[in-house]
Amino acid sequence: MPNPRNKVLDHGYVQLWDSMGDDLRIVNNARQSFGKESLELGEAEKGLISFLMHNRHGTPFEAVTFQFNVKCPIFVAREWFRHRIGSFNEFSARYSEMPREYYIPEPEDVRSQVGKPGSYTFKPITNGTQTWFRSELDATCGMAYIQYQNALKAGVAKELARCFLPVNFYTMFTWTVNLRSLFNFVSLRSAESAMLEIRCYSNAVEHEMKKIVPEAYNAFVENERVAP
Amino acid sequence: MPNPRNKVLDHGYVQLWDSMGDDLRIVNNARQSFGKESLELGEAEKGLISFLMHNRHGTPFEAVTFQFNVKCPIFVAREWFRHRIGSFNEFSARYSEMPREYYIPEPEDVRSQVGKPGSYTFKPITNGTQTWFRSELDATCGMAYIQYQNALKAGVAKELARCFLPVNFYTMFTWTVNLRSLFNFVSLRSAESAMLEIRCYSNAVEHEMKKIVPEAYNAFVENERVAP
Amino acid sequence: MPNPRNKVLDHGYVQLWDSMGDDLRIVNNARQSFGKESLELGEAEKGLISFLMHNRHGTPFEAVTFQFNVKCPIFVAREWFRHRIGSFNEFSARYSEMPREYYIPEPEDVRSQVGKPGSYTFKPITNGTQTWFRSELDATCGMAYIQYQNALKAGVAKELARCFLPVNFYTMFTWTVNLRSLFNFVSLRSAESAMLEIRCYSNAVEHEMKKIVPEAYNAFVENERVAP
Amino acid sequence: MPNPRNKVLDHGYVQLWDSMGDDLRIVNNARQSFGKESLELGEAEKGLISFLMHNRHGTPFEAVTFQFNVKCPIFVAREWFRHRIGSFNEFSARYSEMPREYYIPEPEDVRSQVGKPGSYTFKPITNGTQTWFRSELDATCGMAYIQYQNALKAGVAKELARCFLPVNFYTMFTWTVNLRSLFNFVSLRSAESAMLEIRCYSNAVEHEMKKIVPEAYNAFVENERVAP
Repeated sequence: MPNPRNKVLDHGYVQLWDSMGDDLRIVNNARQSFGKESLELGEAEKGLISFLMHNRHGTPFEAVTFQFNVKCPIFVAREWFRHRIGSFNEFSARYSEMPREYYIPEPEDVRSQVGKPGSYTFKPITNGTQTWFRSELDATCGMAYIQYQNALKAGVAKELARCFLPVNFYTMFTWTVNLRSLFNFVSLRSAESAMLEIRCYSNAVEHEMKKIVPEAYNAFVENERVAP
Repeated sequence: MPNPRNKVLDHGYVQLWDSMGDDLRIVNNARQSFGKESLELGEAEKGLISFLMHNRHGTPFEAVTFQFNVKCPIFVAREWFRHRIGSFNEFSARYSEMPREYYIPEPEDVRSQVGKPGSYTFKPITNGTQTWFRSELDATCGMAYIQYQNALKAGVAKELARCFLPVNFYTMFTWTVNLRSLFNFVSLRSAESAMLEIRCYSNAVEHEMKKIVPEAYNAFVENERVAP
Repeated sequence: MPNPRNKVLDHGYVQLWDSMGDDLRIVNNARQSFGKESLELGEAEKGLISFLMHNRHGTPFEAVTFQFNVKCPIFVAREWFRHRIGSFNEFSARYSEMPREYYIPEPEDVRSQVGKPGSYTFKPITNGTQTWFRSELDATCGMAYIQYQNALKAGVAKELARCFLPVNFYTMFTWTVNLRSLFNFVSLRSAESAMLEIRCYSNAVEHEMKKIVPEAYNAFVENERVAP
Repeated sequence: MPNPRNKVLDHGYVQLWDSMGDDLRIVNNARQSFGKESLELGEAEKGLISFLMHNRHGTPFEAVTFQFNVKCPIFVAREWFRHRIGSFNEFSARYSEMPREYYIPEPEDVRSQVGKPGSYTFKPITNGTQTWFRSELDATCGMAYIQYQNALKAGVAKELARCFLPVNFYTMFTWTVNLRSLFNFVSLRSAESAMLEIRCYSNAVEHEMKKIVPEAYNAFVENERVAP
């Protein structure tokens, strides 16, 4: 039975496909330094996880691996793929036809930006602008998809026909990533300064991650979300 | 004096910003294994480079580093950023306004796709279709940019307003990469099975690379372009 | 029930601790490009694995992860740790006392070296030399261990006392590694030109790997053991 | 004219072989996000470096590359090679004969260890123990080298004969590494909890690094030596 999909944005999701290891695995990788092994997760083990997190002994966290299925807008995927420690297998718009799915933000997520890079704050915007933006974007994306289809029908290669499609169209990928790299991801992408849309995905990732390694996740939160 | 820009596609370029090391550096990194050093690039040194390439002794090629400035369409950048061994600093459409620059293929580059993934061949298409595709794409992108501008004027955040913009808009980035990773890049992206547009960029990268490490480049070509 | 340890050399082993994914996982990561999924491993799926291997589409192989427990001499570990794509957690001789375990080659493995780097061949050596080497090495290591113990008793820090210990003493580590990186490892370390001792470990790794991904392993062997 | 060697320990050194980029390069890689370029390093540029460091915007620091020549004891190299982001080319004791050079600590560096892992403190030890340790270690290493030589003369392969040699023998390597990875190295290896011997090397690395990127180095120190 596969894990359920966490719905994100209007057409996206994050699904935990598989994982390897747990809190005890982290402990036993760390105890490798002493040639010792723990058989269960007691207080000493929880204390060790906390110690490792706090002192940034990162490699034991690399011993736990996750695999996610993700569907997200292209402009979100572009930020995601900047994380180099991990593996991606993505839907190819060279090989396959893009489905007619694009992101239209909820009215309350149509927002303005104030302040400076790195410390932006975002504010809602007038209802009128929200309505205008959403309907305009919907119309534009719908039209772009018709042009994409027309180009395909006219025999234009998929890889070229996609030039019509905006960056809010959805893509899909699988992500294999270890826990250390995952902590780095959520420390950056769930942060307040992160873009709203990737933050929604990062929250879903956190939701799944904490089921697999609850103690490590607690230690991360208690350590002010600084990745090990 | 900066190196000249190699013009690629209609608005793009590849510029070698800087590099560290040369053919002799590769040799002397390999000779480290023997605790020896060469002072000039003679026949023995050229033979060693050829030997390293042929036998896939890759690490000495990592001792030469390149830095490129690149301007390319987003759908090209998406393939480029899949190369994880190297560093990217990219223009941010969260922080800055995208310029009005998008890719319209030359008429002869509007093409169809036949065959199967991994062994596609591409054929030209009727003149009528080429003309139709180019003018339609130009009109669509022009309109998308107006909508983008309108959204910005209405106070919508840059990171959201960009949802209007298609994947053929140009982005810019700096790429710091070692020679081994660069050989891997050009072996994949200059190949016949690669997408036409990234192949143009990869050819420009090769053009710059071979000026810096002519012997290593020769060895690569003679080794049937298999990366070390 | 943990997997059994594969005994290697006189005191070492390779044990598969855990793994994530299988042949079908590789297929479904590759099919992500087409937005498709296979439910079982039929002929089409096997053909796809073979295609991916032959054409060096490497990323789907990164979706399968292994975790090994290894005990090997330090001079073997030094070659092993050169493989950067993967995670190591090693026994620490700063924190813990080294056990009295060192490698003495079997008589027939005491060998001479002829030829040039990259194309060495190894020949057995006279019985007398084999006997001499083994008994001398055993005596030296035994004495070194006594000195190490004496230094510890005199209060010298473990990290410094270890200066007495030769590179044939055993260390232990956990290795988390994806299948693509693992193919690269065995392509280099099971090769004839590899050092005998690491080859024994690499063979044990192969033995475990092929149980988890038999089709991918077959494809690797049929592809002349070139890693994807 | 090559840079001078920084002498470290009794026979080792750190030499900056080459580098690419400087403080201004970091700025201009960061400014790539805005499509802007600075021509000189003024107050705004210094402020930006400080901002990047403090907010852990790490990629612009990857645009500066260093290449070091290092000679150090094997047990130091083993810690060094755990740093995976970077490239090593090392002297090979499979191909070449090891020179007769091994590390004997200065009398005051023969130390004891008190406390727990992660918070060890080290104290000097009695003069008698220091003298005993140093002369015993010297005698043992000298004898080990004679045995190594004897094994070579008897025809034993270099890769096997080295089994006699303790981990305090010197090795040599070249290290190509970007500034971000270098900050991570010095943050860990110059720390008080680091092993004395690698700390000496890390200090020499810092000495060279700060000549090339003085502003970034200042920002690192002011940021409590947390790597970006």
